Amino acid sequence: MGHGLLAGKKGIIFGALDSRSIAWKVAERAVEEGATIVLTNAPVAMRLGEINELATKLNAQIIPADATSLEDLENLFTQSMEILGGKIDFVLHAIGMSVNIRKKKEYTDLNYEWMKTTLDVSSMSFHKMMQVAYKMDAMQEFGSIVALTYIAAQRTFPDYGEMAESKALLESFARSFGYHYAKKAKVRVNTISQSPTMTTAGSGVKGFTDFFGYADKMSPLGNASADACADYCVTMFSDLTRMVTMQNLFHDGGFSSMGMAPELLED
Amino acid sequence: MGHGLLAGKKGIIFGALDSRSIAWKVAERAVEEGATIVLTNAPVAMRLGEINELATKLNAQIIPADATSLEDLENLFTQSMEILGGKIDFVLHAIGMSVNIRKKKEYTDLNYEWMKTTLDVSSMSFHKMMQVAYKMDAMQEFGSIVALTYIAAQRTFPDYGEMAESKALLESFARSFGYHYAKKAKVRVNTISQSPTMTTAGSGVKGFTDFFGYADKMSPLGNASADACADYCVTMFSDLTRMVTMQNLFHDGGFSSMGMAPELLED
Amino acid sequence: MGHGLLAGKKGIIFGALDSRSIAWKVAERAVEEGATIVLTNAPVAMRLGEINELATKLNAQIIPADATSLEDLENLFTQSMEILGGKIDFVLHAIGMSVNIRKKKEYTDLNYEWMKTTLDVSSMSFHKMMQVAYKMDAMQEFGSIVALTYIAAQRTFPDYGEMAESKALLESFARSFGYHYAKKAKVRVNTISQSPTMTTAGSGVKGFTDFFGYADKMSPLGNASADACADYCVTMFSDLTRMVTMQNLFHDGGFSSMGMAPELLED
Amino acid sequence: MGHGLLAGKKGIIFGALDSRSIAWKVAERAVEEGATIVLTNAPVAMRLGEINELATKLNAQIIPADATSLEDLENLFTQSMEILGGKIDFVLHAIGMSVNIRKKKEYTDLNYEWMKTTLDVSSMSFHKMMQVAYKMDAMQEFGSIVALTYIAAQRTFPDYGEMAESKALLESFARSFGYHYAKKAKVRVNTISQSPTMTTAGSGVKGFTDFFGYADKMSPLGNASADACADYCVTMFSDLTRMVTMQNLFHDGGFSSMGMAPELLED
Repeated sequence: MGHGLLAGKKGIIFGALDSRSIAWKVAERAVEEGATIVLTNAPVAMRLGEINELATKLNAQIIPADATSLEDLENLFTQSMEILGGKIDFVLHAIGMSVNIRKKKEYTDLNYEWMKTTLDVSSMSFHKMMQVAYKMDAMQEFGSIVALTYIAAQRTFPDYGEMAESKALLESFARSFGYHYAKKAKVRVNTISQSPTMTTAGSGVKGFTDFFGYADKMSPLGNASADACADYCVTMFSDLTRMVTMQNLFHDGGFSSMGMAPELLED
Repeated sequence: MGHGLLAGKKGIIFGALDSRSIAWKVAERAVEEGATIVLTNAPVAMRLGEINELATKLNAQIIPADATSLEDLENLFTQSMEILGGKIDFVLHAIGMSVNIRKKKEYTDLNYEWMKTTLDVSSMSFHKMMQVAYKMDAMQEFGSIVALTYIAAQRTFPDYGEMAESKALLESFARSFGYHYAKKAKVRVNTISQSPTMTTAGSGVKGFTDFFGYADKMSPLGNASADACADYCVTMFSDLTRMVTMQNLFHDGGFSSMGMAPELLED
Repeated sequence: MGHGLLAGKKGIIFGALDSRSIAWKVAERAVEEGATIVLTNAPVAMRLGEINELATKLNAQIIPADATSLEDLENLFTQSMEILGGKIDFVLHAIGMSVNIRKKKEYTDLNYEWMKTTLDVSSMSFHKMMQVAYKMDAMQEFGSIVALTYIAAQRTFPDYGEMAESKALLESFARSFGYHYAKKAKVRVNTISQSPTMTTAGSGVKGFTDFFGYADKMSPLGNASADACADYCVTMFSDLTRMVTMQNLFHDGGFSSMGMAPELLED
Repeated sequence: MGHGLLAGKKGIIFGALDSRSIAWKVAERAVEEGATIVLTNAPVAMRLGEINELATKLNAQIIPADATSLEDLENLFTQSMEILGGKIDFVLHAIGMSVNIRKKKEYTDLNYEWMKTTLDVSSMSFHKMMQVAYKMDAMQEFGSIVALTYIAAQRTFPDYGEMAESKALLESFARSFGYHYAKKAKVRVNTISQSPTMTTAGSGVKGFTDFFGYADKMSPLGNASADACADYCVTMFSDLTRMVTMQNLFHDGGFSSMGMAPELLED
């Protein structure tokens, strides 16, 4: 079913937890398109997830890495280049977690130490990953780095809490680092702003099912699935999008361009 | 060199004038990726251009059509479906022309009848094309309609004159019609906002060479070429981007996300 | 109740139809803040409206002008400068009308001649007004030009029809002409993107009451009233906002920054 | 010279360092418009600055507060309400500092502990300030909270370093908290995105003078001064802007809407 769009390319996929994860789908599609990949996730997430199953299926190696640890990231890139036999062509960052939401703290009663952890895990990990790769000169020329984000970075979804800020920060890192990486090695950095997705992470947010339905109605094409997102990531990793950088790309069935859907008033 | 990304797909390409045209490159790449296409352009533009050469090379038919004429557009879609053997999967709108710029009228001394012609040719033609296809039910489900645009729709480039308005109008049509076409047949409508390009049309604008150099410096990856734009259009026509609609997508080497490039101060 | 914010300033107010009009409120507030003004509207609108009552109350003269007629606009500025005794400090453009909506044509079945009239009346009138003033050098240095707009210029509200395009065009004119007028006489040009408002014009749109309620729920402060909009216009006409230009300013109780309001799901 | 726009209002001004500070000008203008205020700054900044001189001139009290300390912020609001005799009508947050820039660390070689300090001081302080006020119910209904920001939150200015991220985070806090504070007490929260300004803080950034000149050329009205910014803040604190919330407002002479200024190519 693949088109060989990523033939010969080498990639690192962060954040595949289980078969509902977008990162999981991206890994599958990347391999289907001819890439060889390394999977990575935090040691703690790996215990919860089923990533070994994916690795076996895709004949890929897993390198555990805490994405907030520079040491782990250095080890990840070093080993990945050894395993894959050269510089990296593409990276997916699909990491996000809010301590305050997990602990059910209201947005007007945030614990700031927890917020720092949220920002470190969800956003600063992206800068760290790029800085490590940049210093090691680990990315192939015209390589592609993609992080998954959400429209809460631009608009307020009260139940999304401090994740809004973590996504705003993430997208800012993409723009800022995108400049430097373009200059160094023509590497491009983009974020994909995905519809609410029925992943294990997504469903943890308060009132997610209601919200999912709202977004689905508001989106003229409906919510974009994890599978569709994986397809879109493939195009962004491919050579067909070489001049797209420092962009936030909405993959959302049109949600972001809607002001009001008549469907909402029909009930 | 193709990946078969558009295998079996049927397309209509507006606006191929000569071998420097983006539409020309898109036509070539679409065919290379497995599509069969119909070429179209205004009768007057066809006399100036070399479109016959392209048609021969791609084994494609040409159907002349004035994109401001509903009758011509109806004929175009009817004939295209006959020639290609079914509904249309993708359409490229690459049409733009400013009478006031051609006639060297300053932006503060516009001739409004000329402006109406500019808007009709450059923008309303896009709505007309979609309305005709919509009424004829001429687009395949999940088909893809793309128009080329420029960042002057968002920011002011004084020498671009009333073309700024024509592009703002064009992008608005994409959002508005995108809703209706998603609801009718899951057809998606997007605009690609391309770097300044050394086409025959582009070079006609006052001080274009200087401006081209400026944009090239301001863009971390440099200006995107017509060839790269054709690659990007292919991804937007393919099934890999099925949930992207009502978006304006910058294909510009990062220009749109730059505030100031240090390179500009280095001279 | 005024603060003398516009003491000594001279203004022209387009578009006061009746006491529900935003322009009517702006006229009242401008005078209250110390300005002297001229009222203008299309001859046909004047027959329908109650503008004479307003003129009497504010001790202002009325100069009928079809805003699509350069001749009428020239006469308007000439007479206004005579009546007010000098160059103009501020102008309000509050004009909008869609022929296709009035005639209940669907967005996918537009009559293009009607659309041209819509764009001429609602958008090109703004450029014409500025071009006439520019050529006559009729604006005071650091003068302020404001047009009222709506967020349909950025996002799709299907029932708003072709008015979306007319607002996108209007806002583009503000940016483009804003450059030229800043350079010539430091005149600033901005648009105010107002909440849906219960004016005679607003209530004519299909399903307006339902939509008004939706927007009110979606806006954390509720919909902004015509009175509040008049206050905001006063700040934009005053010397306190001299460096704000080429902006689209949302006056909408926060609507534009909302992704989803939990209030919508509570019913 | 004032208009009594803030007559009877009570405010807190963060961040007045010396007479070049925007916050200093805002304090002067707020008092001139009839407000009574409390000045605050970090103890360390107070030693460097000349804030006592300002306090004397404005007959205002100073309450030192480290804006990253919840305890200090609680004390600040408690004391301010006592001194001013009631709830607070407006707050200015003008705080920003980058440790990595001070220590001349490149953006691709950031120290992440320093970045955390940068984000805590420059951005999280804004959330903390609002959360403290929210919990204490310290803001008057329809009160106004403003933070100063910079367009690096949207576009890349490589020399601005991690301050880009701190501003993106700050603006996201404004949107998110703006929702909650609107719902609680109709308090509005906005950011003003100011031109580069020749403050003591601004001039510390690498190559600031060149950049200041570039922005001045790019802005059709030139760079906005600190004085003009103070005027604009006054409008945002006044009752004339009661329905503006969750917005980022460019006060920049038009810079943000420019794509390319012909003036740049003229040298």
